[in-house]
Amino acid sequence: MLTLYYAKGSSALAPHILLEEVGAEYAVHEVPIAKGANTEPAYLEINPKARVPALMTPNGVITENPAILTYIAATHQQAHVLPDTPFERAEADALCAYLCATAHVAFAHMQRGARWADSAEAHEAMKAKVASNLRDCADVVEHHHLKGPWAMGDRYTFCDAYLFLMPRWMEKAGVDVSDYPKLAAHHDAMLHRPATLAVMAVHGI
Amino acid sequence: MLTLYYAKGSSALAPHILLEEVGAEYAVHEVPIAKGANTEPAYLEINPKARVPALMTPNGVITENPAILTYIAATHQQAHVLPDTPFERAEADALCAYLCATAHVAFAHMQRGARWADSAEAHEAMKAKVASNLRDCADVVEHHHLKGPWAMGDRYTFCDAYLFLMPRWMEKAGVDVSDYPKLAAHHDAMLHRPATLAVMAVHGI
Ligand SMILES: N[C@@H](CCC(=O)N[C@@H](CS)C(=O)NCC(=O)O)C(=O)O
Ligand SMILES: N[C@@H](CCC(=O)N[C@@H](CS)C(=O)NCC(=O)O)C(=O)O
Repeated sequence: MLTLYYAKGSSALAPHILLEEVGAEYAVHEVPIAKGANTEPAYLEINPKARVPALMTPNGVITENPAILTYIAATHQQAHVLPDTPFERAEADALCAYLCATAHVAFAHMQRGARWADSAEAHEAMKAKVASNLRDCADVVEHHHLKGPWAMGDRYTFCDAYLFLMPRWMEKAGVDVSDYPKLAAHHDAMLHRPATLAVMAVHGI
Repeated sequence: MLTLYYAKGSSALAPHILLEEVGAEYAVHEVPIAKGANTEPAYLEINPKARVPALMTPNGVITENPAILTYIAATHQQAHVLPDTPFERAEADALCAYLCATAHVAFAHMQRGARWADSAEAHEAMKAKVASNLRDCADVVEHHHLKGPWAMGDRYTFCDAYLFLMPRWMEKAGVDVSDYPKLAAHHDAMLHRPATLAVMAVHGI
């Protein structure tokens, strides 16, 4: 049995959607970040990094979106959400790494500037650059990482659930996703999948 | 044939070391970042993100350290640098994601603050927090991600080449790796491998 630790509307949406897509047997455990639940001792025992998502498995916990997504894909082979070749797998992994280390991090500078600097001026200077950074990220994804209609082309794979987050980050930063036609079409296609809608209902979004 | 695009002393050290470890047939192509070669049109055709590393394969280019490392591991099975089970694979992937999105990003705030803010004050405020952030990262790695002696325990796997970078980032930020005994022992063990030493010689470090 798998248990996903999640906060509503957080990046835990991605593995949550994928669990639903592959028809996994799983439970969810809410960790309300807004109330600081992620820094309470009970949760630090699950994930000492004090972040969501975390996935409890029969073997122990997995953290980090790219690792959780590929674990779900690899342990539900019948759902066929892994790419077929090592090269395509690497392309999907590269998109996940880019979303994790560049796009998500760019977005985090909007509300989480305190991670990287202590002064209020620095936080304001970071906020001021978030929209243009997310536009750069969207350009990269649109022209380099998104084959269309799904990230890897004709078939839905594990990274599509993660890519779903990006237009959400853009919207919060005031960047219009319709400037990026393939990304906008991807988001729309995601919004037509029952798994996405079921998870969005749980998250109240 | 594989070609690694690298800059001396950069994070391209990680896939470079792994290529050497697995006995891959590969060429290298230097992209001197200090001279701006990563932003020249010829390199932007390889990697529009203007970063190193990038790995050219017979199928096309792969970017992002975690994706390049796992591609090398998956296409050189005889070298046995992939973990054996989906759970252990996810643990190794989680370490790579953490190094990429949290530790490397924490370090990048020392010299690359211009990615996230435009003001000189903000850059100074970011620099001031790098050492303490890397100490937090080292704590997480020491207690959560590094089994010892290798990252995944008794056997060297693809993520060890990436973990090798962390004490280098710490040193540049003035953080003493000897405060983290498992990490220090890991670095020392890496420095005793012929593949590490051969690649360091090419990088002139
Ligand atoms: N690299 C991590 C990032 C996880 C992360 O930053 N999660 C956010 C929510 S989207 C969080 O837990 N924030 C709580 C905090 O910063 O205190 C991943 O991809 O899983
Ligand atoms: N997430 C990327 C980061 C790559 C990266 O930032 N590389 C640095 C060198 S370590 C670079 O190319 N910097 C050039 C620049 O920022 O202009 C990865 O893991 O491959």
